[in-house]
Amino acid sequence: MNVAAQSRQPPADVEVLAFDVFGTVVDWHGSIVREMAQLHPQVDGDAIALAWRAGYKPAMARVMSGELGWTRIDDLHRLILDAILPEHGLAHLDEAQRQHLNRVWHRLDPWPDVLAGLERLKKRFILCTLSNGNLGLLTRMAKRAGLPWDCVLSAEVFRAYKPDPAAYLGFAQVFDLPPRRVMLVAAHHDDLAGARACGLRTAYIERPLEFGAAHPKEVSPRPENDLHCRDFAELADRLGC
Amino acid sequence: MNVAAQSRQPPADVEVLAFDVFGTVVDWHGSIVREMAQLHPQVDGDAIALAWRAGYKPAMARVMSGELGWTRIDDLHRLILDAILPEHGLAHLDEAQRQHLNRVWHRLDPWPDVLAGLERLKKRFILCTLSNGNLGLLTRMAKRAGLPWDCVLSAEVFRAYKPDPAAYLGFAQVFDLPPRRVMLVAAHHDDLAGARACGLRTAYIERPLEFGAAHPKEVSPRPENDLHCRDFAELADRLGC
Repeated sequence: MNVAAQSRQPPADVEVLAFDVFGTVVDWHGSIVREMAQLHPQVDGDAIALAWRAGYKPAMARVMSGELGWTRIDDLHRLILDAILPEHGLAHLDEAQRQHLNRVWHRLDPWPDVLAGLERLKKRFILCTLSNGNLGLLTRMAKRAGLPWDCVLSAEVFRAYKPDPAAYLGFAQVFDLPPRRVMLVAAHHDDLAGARACGLRTAYIERPLEFGAAHPKEVSPRPENDLHCRDFAELADRLGC
Repeated sequence: MNVAAQSRQPPADVEVLAFDVFGTVVDWHGSIVREMAQLHPQVDGDAIALAWRAGYKPAMARVMSGELGWTRIDDLHRLILDAILPEHGLAHLDEAQRQHLNRVWHRLDPWPDVLAGLERLKKRFILCTLSNGNLGLLTRMAKRAGLPWDCVLSAEVFRAYKPDPAAYLGFAQVFDLPPRRVMLVAAHHDDLAGARACGLRTAYIERPLEFGAAHPKEVSPRPENDLHCRDFAELADRLGC
Protein backbone atom coordinates (compact mmCIF):
# COMPACT_ATOMS: atom_id res chain seq x y z
CA MET A 1 0.00 0.00 0.00
CA ASN A 2 1.32 3.44 -0.81
CA VAL A 3 1.23 6.61 1.26
CA ALA A 4 -0.89 8.61 -1.18
CA ALA A 5 -3.60 5.98 -1.04
CA GLN A 6 -3.49 5.68 2.73
CA SER A 7 -4.03 9.40 3.16
CA ARG A 8 -7.63 9.13 1.95
CA GLN A 9 -10.43 7.66 3.98
CA PRO A 10 -12.54 5.11 2.13
CA PRO A 11 -16.01 6.52 1.40
CA ALA A 12 -18.56 5.38 3.99
CA ASP A 13 -21.81 5.73 2.08
CA VAL A 14 -21.00 3.70 -1.04
CA GLU A 15 -23.65 1.02 -1.63
CA VAL A 16 -22.72 -0.35 -5.06
CA LEU A 17 -19.35 -1.26 -6.55
CA ALA A 18 -19.28 -1.04 -10.35
CA PHE A 19 -16.56 -3.16 -11.92
CA ASP A 20 -14.80 -2.66 -15.17
CA VAL A 21 -14.15 -6.19 -16.41
CA PHE A 22 -11.60 -6.57 -19.25
CA GLY A 23 -8.19 -6.09 -17.64
CA THR A 24 -9.56 -5.24 -14.20
CA VAL A 25 -11.35 -8.49 -13.32
CA VAL A 26 -10.09 -10.83 -16.03
CA ASP A 27 -6.71 -11.26 -17.69
CA TRP A 28 -7.65 -10.96 -21.36
CA HIS A 29 -4.07 -11.02 -22.61
CA GLY A 30 -2.95 -14.08 -20.70
CA SER A 31 -6.18 -15.95 -21.41
CA ILE A 32 -5.99 -15.33 -25.16
CA VAL A 33 -2.30 -16.26 -25.30
CA ARG A 34 -3.01 -19.52 -23.44
CA GLU A 35 -5.93 -20.41 -25.67
CA MET A 36 -4.05 -19.53 -28.89
CA ALA A 37 -1.18 -21.76 -27.77
CA GLN A 38 -3.63 -24.66 -27.65
CA LEU A 39 -5.75 -23.87 -30.71
CA HIS A 40 -3.16 -22.44 -33.09
CA PRO A 41 0.31 -23.03 -31.64
CA GLN A 42 2.03 -21.96 -34.85
CA VAL A 43 1.06 -18.28 -34.50
CA ASP A 44 2.14 -15.45 -32.21
CA GLY A 45 -0.60 -15.36 -29.55
CA ASP A 46 0.84 -12.28 -27.87
CA ALA A 47 0.70 -10.31 -31.11
CA ILE A 48 -2.85 -11.43 -31.86
CA ALA A 49 -4.08 -10.57 -28.36
CA LEU A 50 -2.56 -7.09 -28.57
CA ALA A 51 -3.84 -6.43 -32.10
CA TRP A 52 -7.32 -7.63 -31.18
CA ARG A 53 -7.48 -5.42 -28.13
CA ALA A 54 -5.96 -2.46 -30.02
CA GLY A 55 -8.92 -2.60 -32.40
CA TYR A 56 -11.39 -2.26 -29.54
CA LYS A 57 -11.47 1.49 -28.91
CA PRO A 58 -11.44 2.44 -32.60
CA ALA A 59 -14.35 0.04 -33.19
CA MET A 60 -16.39 1.55 -30.34
CA ALA A 61 -15.58 5.01 -31.66
CA ARG A 62 -17.17 4.06 -34.99
CA VAL A 63 -20.36 3.19 -33.11
CA MET A 64 -20.39 6.27 -30.90
CA SER A 65 -19.77 8.54 -33.90
CA GLY A 66 -22.80 7.07 -35.64
CA GLU A 67 -20.80 5.51 -38.47
CA LEU A 68 -22.02 2.11 -37.25
CA GLY A 69 -25.39 1.50 -35.61
CA TRP A 70 -25.48 0.11 -32.08
CA THR A 71 -23.25 -2.97 -32.08
CA ARG A 72 -22.52 -5.45 -29.32
CA ILE A 73 -18.93 -6.13 -28.36
CA ASP A 74 -19.23 -9.74 -29.54
CA ASP A 75 -19.85 -8.36 -33.02
CA LEU A 76 -17.14 -5.72 -32.78
CA HIS A 77 -14.70 -8.40 -31.63
CA ARG A 78 -15.60 -10.40 -34.71
CA LEU A 79 -15.11 -7.45 -37.07
CA ILE A 80 -11.66 -6.86 -35.60
CA LEU A 81 -10.80 -10.56 -35.65
CA ASP A 82 -11.67 -10.92 -39.33
CA ALA A 83 -9.49 -7.89 -40.08
CA ILE A 84 -6.40 -9.12 -38.23
CA LEU A 85 -6.43 -12.85 -39.01
CA PRO A 86 -4.69 -12.55 -42.42
CA GLU A 87 -1.72 -10.62 -41.08
CA HIS A 88 -1.21 -13.27 -38.38
CA GLY A 89 -1.25 -16.29 -40.65
CA LEU A 90 -4.81 -17.38 -39.89
CA ALA A 91 -6.68 -16.28 -43.01
CA HIS A 92 -7.68 -19.90 -43.59
CA LEU A 93 -9.88 -20.22 -40.48
CA ASP A 94 -13.41 -21.25 -41.41
CA GLU A 95 -16.63 -19.81 -40.04
CA ALA A 96 -16.97 -22.30 -37.18
CA GLN A 97 -13.34 -21.74 -36.13
CA ARG A 98 -13.82 -17.97 -36.19
CA GLN A 99 -16.98 -18.19 -34.14
CA HIS A 100 -15.28 -20.36 -31.57
CA LEU A 101 -12.21 -18.14 -31.38
CA ASN A 102 -14.34 -15.01 -31.06
CA ARG A 103 -15.95 -16.52 -27.99
CA VAL A 104 -12.58 -16.62 -26.23
CA TRP A 105 -13.77 -13.33 -24.69
CA HIS A 106 -16.43 -15.39 -22.87
CA ARG A 107 -13.72 -17.66 -21.51
CA LEU A 108 -11.30 -15.19 -19.95
CA ASP A 109 -9.81 -16.14 -16.60
CA PRO A 110 -9.92 -13.82 -13.57
CA TRP A 111 -6.73 -12.51 -11.98
CA PRO A 112 -5.66 -14.71 -9.03
CA ASP A 113 -6.91 -12.27 -6.35
CA VAL A 114 -10.36 -11.72 -7.83
CA LEU A 115 -12.59 -14.53 -6.59
CA ALA A 116 -11.54 -14.29 -2.94
CA GLY A 117 -11.70 -10.50 -3.05
CA LEU A 118 -15.17 -10.42 -4.56
CA GLU A 119 -16.50 -12.88 -1.97
CA ARG A 120 -15.32 -10.54 0.80
CA LEU A 121 -16.71 -7.43 -0.93
CA LYS A 122 -20.02 -9.14 -1.65
CA LYS A 123 -20.85 -9.34 2.06
CA ARG A 124 -21.03 -5.56 2.28
CA PHE A 125 -21.67 -4.15 -1.20
CA ILE A 126 -23.81 -4.77 -4.23
CA LEU A 127 -21.34 -6.02 -6.85
CA CYS A 128 -22.23 -5.23 -10.45
CA THR A 129 -20.34 -5.15 -13.71
CA LEU A 130 -20.15 -1.92 -15.69
CA SER A 131 -18.39 -3.11 -18.81
CA ASN A 132 -18.51 -2.33 -22.48
CA GLY A 133 -18.82 -6.07 -22.98
CA ASN A 134 -22.31 -7.26 -23.84
CA LEU A 135 -24.64 -8.92 -21.33
CA GLY A 136 -24.45 -12.39 -22.82
CA LEU A 137 -20.67 -12.29 -22.88
CA LEU A 138 -20.45 -11.04 -19.28
CA THR A 139 -22.96 -13.60 -18.03
CA ARG A 140 -21.26 -16.57 -19.67
CA MET A 141 -17.85 -15.35 -18.50
CA ALA A 142 -19.12 -15.04 -14.93
CA LYS A 143 -20.73 -18.46 -14.95
CA ARG A 144 -17.60 -20.16 -16.22
CA ALA A 145 -15.23 -18.28 -13.90
CA GLY A 146 -17.46 -18.19 -10.81
CA LEU A 147 -17.65 -14.39 -10.58
CA PRO A 148 -20.34 -13.72 -7.94
CA TRP A 149 -22.03 -10.63 -9.40
CA ASP A 150 -25.25 -9.44 -7.84
CA CYS A 151 -26.19 -7.90 -11.17
CA VAL A 152 -24.70 -7.74 -14.65
CA LEU A 153 -24.87 -4.35 -16.35
CA SER A 154 -23.26 -3.28 -19.57
CA ALA A 155 -22.99 -0.52 -22.11
CA GLU A 156 -25.58 -2.65 -23.93
CA VAL A 157 -28.23 -1.56 -21.40
CA PHE A 158 -27.43 2.13 -21.76
CA ARG A 159 -26.66 2.05 -25.48
CA ALA A 160 -23.48 3.97 -24.72
CA TYR A 161 -19.92 2.77 -24.29
CA LYS A 162 -17.80 4.04 -21.43
CA PRO A 163 -16.48 6.69 -21.01
CA ASP A 164 -19.73 8.21 -22.30
CA PRO A 165 -21.48 9.82 -19.29
CA ALA A 166 -24.72 8.00 -20.15
CA ALA A 167 -23.15 4.73 -19.01
CA TYR A 168 -22.09 5.99 -15.55
CA LEU A 169 -25.21 8.04 -14.89
CA GLY A 170 -27.50 5.31 -16.19
CA PHE A 171 -25.80 2.86 -13.85
CA ALA A 172 -26.43 5.06 -10.78
CA GLN A 173 -30.05 5.56 -11.87
CA VAL A 174 -30.63 1.81 -12.07
CA PHE A 175 -29.89 1.63 -8.35
CA ASP A 176 -31.76 4.85 -7.60
CA LEU A 177 -28.63 6.30 -6.03
CA PRO A 178 -26.80 9.60 -6.30
CA PRO A 179 -23.55 8.97 -8.23
CA ARG A 180 -21.37 9.49 -5.14
CA ARG A 181 -22.85 6.31 -3.63
CA VAL A 182 -21.41 4.24 -6.50
CA MET A 183 -17.71 3.46 -6.78
CA LEU A 184 -16.15 2.41 -10.07
CA VAL A 185 -13.36 -0.16 -9.73
CA ALA A 186 -11.08 -0.14 -12.77
CA ALA A 187 -7.52 -0.54 -13.96
CA HIS A 188 -7.82 2.26 -16.54
CA HIS A 189 -7.50 5.96 -15.85
CA ASP A 190 -9.71 7.10 -18.73
CA ASP A 191 -12.58 4.99 -17.39
CA LEU A 192 -12.07 6.30 -13.86
CA ALA A 193 -11.90 9.89 -15.14
CA GLY A 194 -15.21 9.43 -16.95
CA ALA A 195 -16.81 8.09 -13.79
CA ARG A 196 -15.36 10.85 -11.63
CA ALA A 197 -16.69 13.52 -13.99
CA CYS A 198 -20.16 12.08 -13.37
CA GLY A 199 -19.72 12.16 -9.59
CA LEU A 200 -18.92 8.51 -8.93
CA ARG A 201 -16.24 7.44 -6.47
CA THR A 202 -13.20 5.72 -8.02
CA ALA A 203 -10.82 2.92 -7.08
CA TYR A 204 -7.80 2.22 -9.25
CA ILE A 205 -6.51 -1.34 -9.37
CA GLU A 206 -2.93 -2.01 -10.46
CA ARG A 207 -2.76 -4.57 -13.23
CA PRO A 208 0.85 -4.18 -14.38
CA LEU A 209 0.68 -7.35 -16.49
CA GLU A 210 -2.53 -6.44 -18.33
CA PHE A 211 -0.67 -6.39 -21.65
CA GLY A 212 1.56 -9.33 -20.79
CA ALA A 213 4.89 -9.65 -19.04
CA ALA A 214 6.70 -8.33 -22.11
CA HIS A 215 4.76 -5.05 -22.01
CA PRO A 216 4.53 -3.89 -18.36
CA LYS A 217 2.04 -1.11 -17.68
CA GLU A 218 2.80 1.98 -15.61
CA VAL A 219 0.64 1.77 -12.48
CA SER A 220 1.78 4.56 -10.18
CA PRO A 221 -0.91 6.28 -8.07
CA ARG A 222 -2.78 9.35 -9.21
CA PRO A 223 -4.18 11.58 -6.49
CA GLU A 224 -7.56 12.10 -8.14
CA ASN A 225 -8.76 8.58 -7.32
CA ASP A 226 -10.40 7.85 -3.97
CA LEU A 227 -8.51 4.59 -3.64
CA HIS A 228 -5.41 3.09 -5.21
CA CYS A 229 -5.09 -0.65 -4.59
CA ARG A 230 -2.69 -3.32 -5.69
CA ASP A 231 -5.47 -5.86 -6.13
CA PHE A 232 -8.95 -6.89 -4.93
CA ALA A 233 -7.58 -8.13 -1.60
CA GLU A 234 -6.31 -4.65 -0.83
CA LEU A 235 -9.58 -3.16 -2.06
CA ALA A 236 -11.47 -5.35 0.42
CA ASP A 237 -9.05 -4.33 3.16
CA ARG A 238 -9.47 -0.65 2.41
CA LEU A 239 -13.25 -0.92 2.30
CA GLY A 240 -13.35 -2.69 5.65
CA CYS A 241 -14.58 -6.04 4.34
CA MET B 1 -46.43 -34.84 -10.64
CA ASN B 2 -49.40 -35.22 -12.98
CA VAL B 3 -49.84 -37.46 -15.97
CA ALA B 4 -50.27 -34.65 -18.50
CA ALA B 5 -46.92 -33.17 -17.52
CA GLN B 6 -45.15 -36.52 -17.60
CA SER B 7 -46.24 -37.18 -21.15
CA ARG B 8 -43.91 -34.48 -22.49
CA GLN B 9 -40.16 -34.83 -22.72
CA PRO B 10 -38.24 -31.90 -21.28
CA PRO B 11 -36.53 -29.90 -24.04
CA ALA B 12 -32.90 -30.91 -24.43
CA ASP B 13 -31.39 -27.82 -26.03
CA VAL B 14 -32.52 -25.14 -23.57
CA GLU B 15 -29.55 -23.08 -22.35
CA VAL B 16 -31.21 -20.29 -20.38
CA LEU B 17 -34.08 -20.36 -17.89
CA ALA B 18 -35.94 -17.05 -17.69
CA PHE B 19 -37.82 -16.58 -14.43
CA ASP B 20 -40.88 -14.56 -13.76
CA VAL B 21 -40.37 -13.28 -10.21
CA PHE B 22 -43.45 -11.86 -8.43
CA GLY B 23 -45.56 -14.85 -7.47
CA THR B 24 -43.34 -17.41 -9.20
CA VAL B 25 -40.11 -16.97 -7.21
CA VAL B 26 -41.27 -14.82 -4.29
CA ASP B 27 -44.45 -14.79 -2.22
CA TRP B 28 -45.51 -11.15 -2.57
CA HIS B 29 -48.82 -11.64 -0.76
CA GLY B 30 -47.46 -13.42 2.29
CA SER B 31 -44.44 -11.11 2.54
CA ILE B 32 -46.56 -7.96 2.44
CA VAL B 33 -49.06 -9.35 4.95
CA ARG B 34 -46.22 -10.26 7.33
CA GLU B 35 -44.57 -6.87 7.01
CA MET B 36 -47.85 -4.96 7.40
CA ALA B 37 -48.58 -6.93 10.58
CA GLN B 38 -45.34 -5.59 12.02
CA LEU B 39 -45.42 -2.03 10.65
CA HIS B 40 -49.14 -1.25 10.78
CA PRO B 41 -50.91 -4.00 12.75
CA GLN B 42 -54.18 -2.07 12.89
CA VAL B 43 -54.90 -2.41 9.15
CA ASP B 44 -55.95 -5.30 6.90
CA GLY B 45 -52.69 -6.45 5.34
CA ASP B 46 -54.40 -8.98 3.10
CA ALA B 47 -56.65 -6.30 1.60
CA ILE B 48 -53.73 -3.91 1.06
CA ALA B 49 -51.60 -6.59 -0.59
CA LEU B 50 -54.42 -7.52 -2.96
CA ALA B 51 -55.30 -3.91 -3.79
CA TRP B 52 -51.65 -3.03 -4.40
CA ARG B 53 -51.15 -5.96 -6.72
CA ALA B 54 -54.49 -5.34 -8.47
CA GLY B 55 -53.23 -1.89 -9.46
CA TYR B 56 -50.17 -3.36 -11.16
CA LYS B 57 -51.49 -4.39 -14.58
CA PRO B 58 -53.60 -1.24 -15.07
CA ALA B 59 -50.55 0.89 -14.19
CA MET B 60 -48.35 -0.94 -16.72
CA ALA B 61 -51.12 -0.57 -19.30
CA ARG B 62 -50.96 3.22 -18.85
CA VAL B 63 -47.26 3.08 -19.70
CA MET B 64 -47.60 0.73 -22.66
CA SER B 65 -50.45 2.83 -24.11
CA GLY B 66 -48.24 5.91 -24.01
CA GLU B 67 -50.38 7.73 -21.43
CA LEU B 68 -47.36 7.62 -19.10
CA GLY B 69 -43.75 7.74 -20.25
CA TRP B 70 -41.47 4.84 -19.40
CA THR B 71 -41.84 4.24 -15.66
CA ARG B 72 -40.06 1.79 -13.41
CA ILE B 73 -42.09 -0.58 -11.27
CA ASP B 74 -40.79 1.08 -8.09
CA ASP B 75 -42.49 4.26 -9.26
CA LEU B 76 -45.66 2.49 -10.41
CA HIS B 77 -45.84 0.75 -7.03
CA ARG B 78 -45.62 4.14 -5.36
CA LEU B 79 -48.39 5.63 -7.52
CA ILE B 80 -50.65 2.73 -6.62
CA LEU B 81 -49.71 2.86 -2.94
CA ASP B 82 -50.52 6.55 -2.67
CA ALA B 83 -53.88 5.87 -4.30
CA ILE B 84 -54.89 3.00 -1.98
CA LEU B 85 -53.57 4.19 1.39
CA PRO B 86 -56.58 6.42 2.24
CA GLU B 87 -59.14 3.67 1.76
CA HIS B 88 -57.10 1.39 4.05
CA GLY B 89 -56.77 3.81 6.93
CA LEU B 90 -53.20 4.86 6.22
CA ALA B 91 -53.64 8.31 4.70
CA HIS B 92 -51.52 9.72 7.51
CA LEU B 93 -48.27 7.98 6.51
CA ASP B 94 -45.51 10.52 5.90
CA GLU B 95 -43.05 10.53 3.02
CA ALA B 96 -40.39 8.46 4.79
CA GLN B 97 -42.96 5.86 5.84
CA ARG B 98 -44.32 5.64 2.30
CA GLN B 99 -40.83 5.25 0.84
CA HIS B 100 -40.04 2.50 3.31
CA LEU B 101 -43.30 0.69 2.73
CA ASN B 102 -42.91 0.95 -1.05
CA ARG B 103 -39.61 -0.87 -0.75
CA VAL B 104 -41.36 -3.92 0.69
CA TRP B 105 -41.22 -5.19 -2.91
CA HIS B 106 -37.43 -5.36 -2.48
CA ARG B 107 -37.90 -7.46 0.67
CA LEU B 108 -40.15 -10.25 -0.60
CA ASP B 109 -39.38 -13.76 0.59
CA PRO B 110 -38.96 -16.69 -1.80
CA TRP B 111 -41.29 -19.68 -1.66
CA PRO B 112 -39.80 -22.50 0.47
CA ASP B 113 -38.71 -24.63 -2.50
CA VAL B 114 -36.95 -21.85 -4.42
CA LEU B 115 -33.40 -21.61 -3.07
CA ALA B 116 -32.69 -25.32 -3.15
CA GLY B 117 -34.30 -25.66 -6.57
CA LEU B 118 -32.32 -22.77 -8.07
CA GLU B 119 -29.04 -24.16 -6.74
CA ARG B 120 -29.74 -27.44 -8.55
CA LEU B 121 -30.84 -25.71 -11.77
CA LYS B 122 -27.83 -23.36 -11.69
CA LYS B 123 -25.43 -26.26 -12.25
CA ARG B 124 -26.87 -26.87 -15.70
CA PHE B 125 -28.57 -23.69 -16.91
CA ILE B 126 -28.01 -19.96 -17.02
CA LEU B 127 -30.56 -18.58 -14.56
CA CYS B 128 -31.85 -15.11 -15.31
CA THR B 129 -34.82 -13.05 -14.20
CA LEU B 130 -37.31 -11.82 -16.78
CA SER B 131 -39.54 -9.68 -14.63
CA ASN B 132 -41.45 -6.47 -15.03
CA GLY B 133 -39.77 -5.39 -11.78
CA ASN B 134 -36.93 -2.92 -12.25
CA LEU B 135 -33.28 -3.90 -12.08
CA GLY B 136 -32.54 -2.21 -8.76
CA LEU B 137 -35.54 -3.86 -7.12
CA LEU B 138 -34.64 -7.30 -8.49
CA THR B 139 -30.98 -6.97 -7.48
CA ARG B 140 -31.72 -5.88 -3.91
CA MET B 141 -34.37 -8.59 -3.56
CA ALA B 142 -31.92 -11.23 -4.77
CA LYS B 143 -29.14 -10.07 -2.48
CA ARG B 144 -31.40 -10.10 0.59
CA ALA B 145 -33.01 -13.45 -0.23
CA GLY B 146 -29.94 -15.22 -1.62
CA LEU B 147 -31.37 -15.83 -5.09
CA PRO B 148 -28.40 -17.06 -7.16
CA TRP B 149 -29.14 -15.42 -10.53
CA ASP B 150 -26.46 -15.52 -13.21
CA CYS B 151 -27.92 -12.35 -14.68
CA VAL B 152 -30.72 -9.95 -13.80
CA LEU B 153 -32.87 -8.81 -16.72
CA SER B 154 -36.04 -6.80 -16.62
CA ALA B 155 -38.64 -5.02 -18.69
CA GLU B 156 -36.50 -1.99 -17.80
CA VAL B 157 -33.80 -3.20 -20.20
CA PHE B 158 -36.21 -3.72 -23.08
CA ARG B 159 -38.45 -0.74 -22.30
CA ALA B 160 -41.42 -3.09 -22.65
CA TYR B 161 -43.43 -4.89 -20.01
CA LYS B 162 -44.35 -8.52 -20.45
CA PRO B 163 -46.36 -9.84 -22.23
CA ASP B 164 -45.11 -7.44 -24.93
CA PRO B 165 -43.12 -9.55 -27.45
CA ALA B 166 -40.20 -7.11 -27.22
CA ALA B 167 -39.44 -8.40 -23.72
CA TYR B 168 -39.25 -12.09 -24.68
CA LEU B 169 -37.46 -11.56 -27.99
CA GLY B 170 -35.06 -9.03 -26.47
CA PHE B 171 -34.22 -11.55 -23.77
CA ALA B 172 -33.33 -14.27 -26.29
CA GLN B 173 -31.25 -11.76 -28.28
CA VAL B 174 -29.22 -10.85 -25.19
CA PHE B 175 -28.03 -14.44 -25.06
CA ASP B 176 -27.67 -14.71 -28.84
CA LEU B 177 -30.02 -17.67 -28.86
CA PRO B 178 -33.03 -18.68 -30.92
CA PRO B 179 -36.14 -18.33 -28.70
CA ARG B 180 -36.65 -22.10 -28.46
CA ARG B 181 -33.42 -22.37 -26.47
CA VAL B 182 -34.90 -20.19 -23.71
CA MET B 183 -37.56 -21.49 -21.30
CA LEU B 184 -39.78 -19.13 -19.35
CA VAL B 185 -40.62 -20.33 -15.85
CA ALA B 186 -43.77 -18.66 -14.53
CA ALA B 187 -46.89 -19.13 -12.45
CA HIS B 188 -49.07 -17.07 -14.82
CA HIS B 189 -50.64 -18.32 -18.01
CA ASP B 190 -50.75 -14.92 -19.74
CA ASP B 191 -47.00 -14.56 -19.31
CA LEU B 192 -46.37 -18.10 -20.58
CA ALA B 193 -48.67 -17.50 -23.55
CA GLY B 194 -46.72 -14.35 -24.48
CA ALA B 195 -43.47 -16.27 -24.33
CA ARG B 196 -44.84 -19.20 -26.32
CA ALA B 197 -46.08 -16.86 -29.06
CA CYS B 198 -42.46 -15.67 -29.43
CA GLY B 199 -41.13 -19.24 -29.67
CA LEU B 200 -39.83 -19.71 -26.13
CA ARG B 201 -40.32 -22.94 -24.19
CA THR B 202 -42.59 -22.70 -21.15
CA ALA B 203 -42.76 -24.22 -17.68
CA TYR B 204 -45.78 -23.54 -15.48
CA ILE B 205 -45.24 -23.55 -11.72
CA GLU B 206 -48.20 -24.08 -9.40
CA ARG B 207 -48.45 -21.35 -6.79
CA PRO B 208 -51.93 -22.01 -5.39
CA LEU B 209 -51.35 -19.65 -2.46
CA GLU B 210 -50.10 -16.72 -4.54
CA PHE B 211 -53.06 -14.58 -3.41
CA GLY B 212 -53.10 -15.96 0.13
CA ALA B 213 -54.72 -18.96 1.75
CA ALA B 214 -58.11 -17.20 1.69
CA HIS B 215 -58.02 -16.86 -2.10
CA PRO B 216 -56.70 -20.13 -3.58
CA LYS B 217 -55.70 -20.01 -7.24
CA GLU B 218 -56.73 -22.57 -9.84
CA VAL B 219 -53.54 -24.37 -10.94
CA SER B 220 -54.63 -27.27 -13.10
CA PRO B 221 -52.37 -28.18 -16.05
CA ARG B 222 -52.81 -26.74 -19.52
CA PRO B 223 -51.48 -28.83 -22.39
CA GLU B 224 -49.85 -25.93 -24.24
CA ASN B 225 -46.98 -25.66 -21.74
CA ASP B 226 -43.88 -27.82 -22.17
CA LEU B 227 -43.74 -28.52 -18.45
CA HIS B 228 -46.18 -28.30 -15.55
CA CYS B 229 -44.49 -28.50 -12.16
CA ARG B 230 -45.66 -28.25 -8.59
CA ASP B 231 -42.57 -26.29 -7.56
CA PHE B 232 -38.88 -25.68 -8.36
CA ALA B 233 -37.89 -29.07 -6.94
CA GLU B 234 -40.07 -30.77 -9.52
CA LEU B 235 -38.75 -28.41 -12.22
CA ALA B 236 -35.20 -29.48 -11.36
CA ASP B 237 -36.28 -33.13 -11.43
CA ARG B 238 -37.93 -32.76 -14.81
CA LEU B 239 -34.95 -30.95 -16.29
CA GLY B 240 -32.56 -33.65 -15.09
CA CYS B 241 -30.70 -31.52 -12.54
